[in-house]
Amino acid sequence: MIFPVLCLFLAARFSKIQNKSSTAKYGHKLWPMPQLISSSTDRYPLSPRQFIFQYASGSSAKSGCSVIDSAFKRYFPLIFKTEKHMYRTFSMQPMLNVYASIHLSFPFSVVDKLSVSSGQASLRAKTVWGALRGNKTIHIRHVRYKYFVNKTEIDDFPRFKFRGLLLDTSRHYLPLPAILKTLDAMSYNKFNVFHWHIVDDPSFPYQSSTFPGLSSKGAFHPSTHVYSQTDVSRVISHARLRGIRVLPEFDSPGHTQSWGKGQPGLLTSCYKGSVPSGTFGPVNPAMSSSYQFISRLFKEVASVFPDPYIHLGGDEVDFTCWKSNPEVRGFMQKMGFGTDYTKLESYYMENIINLTKTLNKTSIVWQDVFDNHEKIPEETVLHIWKGSPAQIQQELSDITLAGYRVILSAPWYINHIAYGQDWTTYYNVQPLNFTGSEQQKSLVIGGEVCMWGEYVDATNLSPRLWPRASAAAERLWSDEKTTSSVTDAFPRLTDFRCRLLRRGIQAEPLFVGHCRHEYEGI
Amino acid sequence: MIFPVLCLFLAARFSKIQNKSSTAKYGHKLWPMPQLISSSTDRYPLSPRQFIFQYASGSSAKSGCSVIDSAFKRYFPLIFKTEKHMYRTFSMQPMLNVYASIHLSFPFSVVDKLSVSSGQASLRAKTVWGALRGNKTIHIRHVRYKYFVNKTEIDDFPRFKFRGLLLDTSRHYLPLPAILKTLDAMSYNKFNVFHWHIVDDPSFPYQSSTFPGLSSKGAFHPSTHVYSQTDVSRVISHARLRGIRVLPEFDSPGHTQSWGKGQPGLLTSCYKGSVPSGTFGPVNPAMSSSYQFISRLFKEVASVFPDPYIHLGGDEVDFTCWKSNPEVRGFMQKMGFGTDYTKLESYYMENIINLTKTLNKTSIVWQDVFDNHEKIPEETVLHIWKGSPAQIQQELSDITLAGYRVILSAPWYINHIAYGQDWTTYYNVQPLNFTGSEQQKSLVIGGEVCMWGEYVDATNLSPRLWPRASAAAERLWSDEKTTSSVTDAFPRLTDFRCRLLRRGIQAEPLFVGHCRHEYEGI
Repeated sequence: MIFPVLCLFLAARFSKIQNKSSTAKYGHKLWPMPQLISSSTDRYPLSPRQFIFQYASGSSAKSGCSVIDSAFKRYFPLIFKTEKHMYRTFSMQPMLNVYASIHLSFPFSVVDKLSVSSGQASLRAKTVWGALRGNKTIHIRHVRYKYFVNKTEIDDFPRFKFRGLLLDTSRHYLPLPAILKTLDAMSYNKFNVFHWHIVDDPSFPYQSSTFPGLSSKGAFHPSTHVYSQTDVSRVISHARLRGIRVLPEFDSPGHTQSWGKGQPGLLTSCYKGSVPSGTFGPVNPAMSSSYQFISRLFKEVASVFPDPYIHLGGDEVDFTCWKSNPEVRGFMQKMGFGTDYTKLESYYMENIINLTKTLNKTSIVWQDVFDNHEKIPEETVLHIWKGSPAQIQQELSDITLAGYRVILSAPWYINHIAYGQDWTTYYNVQPLNFTGSEQQKSLVIGGEVCMWGEYVDATNLSPRLWPRASAAAERLWSDEKTTSSVTDAFPRLTDFRCRLLRRGIQAEPLFVGHCRHEYEGI
Repeated sequence: MIFPVLCLFLAARFSKIQNKSSTAKYGHKLWPMPQLISSSTDRYPLSPRQFIFQYASGSSAKSGCSVIDSAFKRYFPLIFKTEKHMYRTFSMQPMLNVYASIHLSFPFSVVDKLSVSSGQASLRAKTVWGALRGNKTIHIRHVRYKYFVNKTEIDDFPRFKFRGLLLDTSRHYLPLPAILKTLDAMSYNKFNVFHWHIVDDPSFPYQSSTFPGLSSKGAFHPSTHVYSQTDVSRVISHARLRGIRVLPEFDSPGHTQSWGKGQPGLLTSCYKGSVPSGTFGPVNPAMSSSYQFISRLFKEVASVFPDPYIHLGGDEVDFTCWKSNPEVRGFMQKMGFGTDYTKLESYYMENIINLTKTLNKTSIVWQDVFDNHEKIPEETVLHIWKGSPAQIQQELSDITLAGYRVILSAPWYINHIAYGQDWTTYYNVQPLNFTGSEQQKSLVIGGEVCMWGEYVDATNLSPRLWPRASAAAERLWSDEKTTSSVTDAFPRLTDFRCRLLRRGIQAEPLFVGHCRHEYEGI
C-alpha cells in the first residue's frame, strides 16, 4: 500500500469557446470544496468519442499502474454516462477537434493542481492517490447533450489525512455488494479510510483461516453470513483502487460475545455467588491462553489486512463479570491491582497493543483506553466516540496535550437519525475548536463517520449514509473558512446528491425537489 | 368497485402428520393479528407440485373473477418461493398425496373464516375482498425444504373499515414502480386505501386531459415527472386487484402554488400596498372562474378515479394574501363576511364540497374545515392530522359529537423519523381512547399512515415505510385487547419484516439480527 512519491501531470487540449450567453454565469458545484478554485465562464467542448486519458512520457507512473489505469477506465463512463443516447448523437455529429491526455512527469509539486485553461487541461499530483482524487475533481457539465469543461484553476489537498467511514457488519451482516457500493460512494466523497468494524457481540462474520470455528459458530449463518478470505481481499483491492485504506477492527476485551461461541474458554465465566451463572463477560484477562489466542488471531489479521494500523477497540468494558469470577479476583490480588479493575483492563490493553506492535502494526483504540489508563505506547492513536460537545473538546485537549494522535467520531454518529436536514449538524462540526497549541491541533489526524448497525442493514444503508455523510466529507477535506455556511453548501450538496444518484448511489433527497435524471430510476 | 356480496370457500385436503418433535411448539407469526386464531402443533405437508387453488362449484364467484384469479396466480409463488432450488428438490422427491383447492360457495358467513384441520383447509368469506385477505392469512411454514401448514382455525375481520396510507407525489415525484411496490406491501399489511396526495405546492404531476397545461407547466418535468392517464389507471387496477381503493386528493384552496403555473388567474394575486407583489396565494375564492375551473377539473377526476370519495384537502389556508388583495376584500364586503376570513374559506369549501356532491362523490377534508366552519354537509368525512395527544382526543370527541365520520392520521405521520424503535409509538396509538358514546366511537371509520414527501423519494421510501407502517396496520385491523403488548408484537413483527423482504419489499430491520434469507439480496 506504500507507493513512491511521484508526480502526475494531466494535459488536455481544447478548442476554446467564448461563452456567448451573458446569463450563463458559471458557479462550480464541486463537493467537497477544493482548497483553491478559480473558474471562468469560458468553456471548452468535449467529445466522448475523442476524449482519452494518457500517461505522459517521463512520468514516474506509467501504464501498468493499476490504480491510475483503473481510474481511467472507471471515470470515462462516469463523465460521459448521463445520457444513454448521447453516443448516437455524437457519432452523427462529430465534435470539434478536441482531445485530452494524461501525462505523468517530474518534478513534484507541493500540492495537487488541476488546471483547465486555453487549449490545455493538466493535473499535477505528488502521488498516485492525489492524481486519483484530482481525477474526481474534473467537473464536466453537459448542456443539451453536449459536454463542456470550464476554464478552471484548482490547487487542492486534504485538510485532514484520515477521512474515515465505519461500517458495522456484526449487528447486521452486510452483503459484499453493499460494502463495495459504499466504497464507490466513499471515493466520490474523497473519504480515504474504510474502518471495518467487522465483528462484535452479535456475530462474528470474519472467516478466520486460523480459527474457522469463530465464524462457523459465531456468525449468523456459517456459510451465507460470513466474509471469506476471498471476500476480504476483494474489499481491500476494490478499496485500494479507489484510494481507500481498509482499517480492520477486532474490538476486545468487551464486545466479544460472538467470539466465545467458537473459542471456548476465551471469555470470562460470570458467577452468581460461588457458581458459574452460565453467562459470559469480556475476554478473560487472567489467562495466558487469552493472549496466545489474540496473538495468533492478530498474526493472521496483520497479514490479511495490509494497512499499517489495526483498530483494537477497548471500549465499554463492563467489570461486573470480572468482579464475580474468583479466578479473575485471584489474578487481581496476585498482580497487586487491589480492587481497581481499570488496572486489569489497562494490563489487558497494554498486552495486546504490545503484541500488535510486534506484528509491525500501530494500534488505534477507542478513547476509553486513554480515559482509564496511565501508560499507553506513544504511537497509539486515540479515537473519540462519546460525550457532549464540551466533553469532546476537553477530550481533544487532554489527548493531544498528552501527545497522542487523535481521530474524531463523536459528532459524526450518523446512525442517529433525526427528522429534517440533520446534515447541517454534521457540517457544522469544527474538529479543531478546542483549547490547545498548534502542535496539539496537528495531532488531530482526522475524523470518521460511524454507521453503527443496530437499525441498519443493506435495506437502508445507502440512503441513510448519503448524502448525510457527505457533510462530514467536506468538513474533513476542505478549508473551514470557505465552507462555513450551510446556506452556501445546500445547493452544492443538492447537486452533488444528484451526481451520486447518477453514479448509482441510492442517496436520499435533502429536501423538496428533483434531480434531472432521477426518472431513470435508481 | 362495488361487488355483490358473495361467499368464498376454500378447501384443501391434507394428510395429517402428528408432530413428533416435542420442542416444535408452534407459535403463529401472522401480522396483522387475526381477530380469533387457534392453532395446534399438528401439521400437514404441502407440495408445490401438487398444490392448486380452485373455485368450488356453486360459488357465486367463478373463474373469470379477476380479483380472485389474479390472487391465485400471485400467491402461489409467494407461498412457495422461499428456496429457488426447491422445485428441483420436489421433482426428485415427490411429496405425499396432498392437494389443495379453493371452492367458492354459498351461504354467506358473517365473518371471514379460515380453517385448516384434519384433511381439509377451507376459507369462507362474505366478499371477494374478504377472500383476498383470507388468502393472505394462510401461513405456510417451511422446514428443511419441505412445506407444512399447521392445524388452525381463524375467524377474521377488520376492526376499522378505512385502513389508509398516504403517499405525497408532489414534494418529490415517485416513479410508477415505487407506487406499485408500495401497493404490494400495503396488501401484505391489509391496508385497503391508497390516499394519493397527488399534487401540492411544489409540483403538479397529474396529467389532466382537460387542462394539460397544469402538468406541462406545473410538473417538475413535463414528460418525465408526470402521471399520464395510463399511469393512473395502472395504479388503480394494480390497487384494485390487491383489494385497495385509490382515494385521490386535490388539495385546495391552499397548497396550490403549482396549479397556478398552468392556470393563470386561478390563484390570488398578493399585493404589497396597492400593487401586486408578483407572488400568489391560495385559489382566488372571489372569482366565479375559480369554481368553473374546479368543477371541470373535478369532473375529470371523478371519472378517472372510480372511488366514491374525493379528498378535497382544505388545510393550512393562509389568509395573508387574501387580506392583501383589494378584489378579495371587496368580495368579503359584498358577502357580508366582515373581516372574518374563515367565513371566506368556509364559503369556498362549501362550494367545492357541493360541486363534488353533484358528481356523486363524497368529500373527505382535513380537520381545518371542521375547526373553522359552521356548516359542513353531514356526509363529509373529517381527517385529523395535527395536535398533541390531548388535542387529538378532543378533536375526536368534537367531530363525532357533531355527527361526522372521522379518519385519524395525526399520530401516524410516519415521515417523522426518530432514532430507535419508533414503531412502538405507532403501535401504542389507541384510536378510540377519547370521551364519547358508543355511537360516537362508531363514527371513527379508521386511520391512515401519512408519508409526506419533504425528505422522501424513491431512494428511501420503502425502508422508511416498512415495517414502521406495519405497526399502524395491526392497530387498524386487529383487536386492541390481543395486541396491546409491544413485547409480544416484537418477534411477530420481526418475522413479518423478513417475510416482506422475501416478497421483495425493502423493509428495514427492527433491531440487531438477521433474516434467514436476506443474503439472497433485496
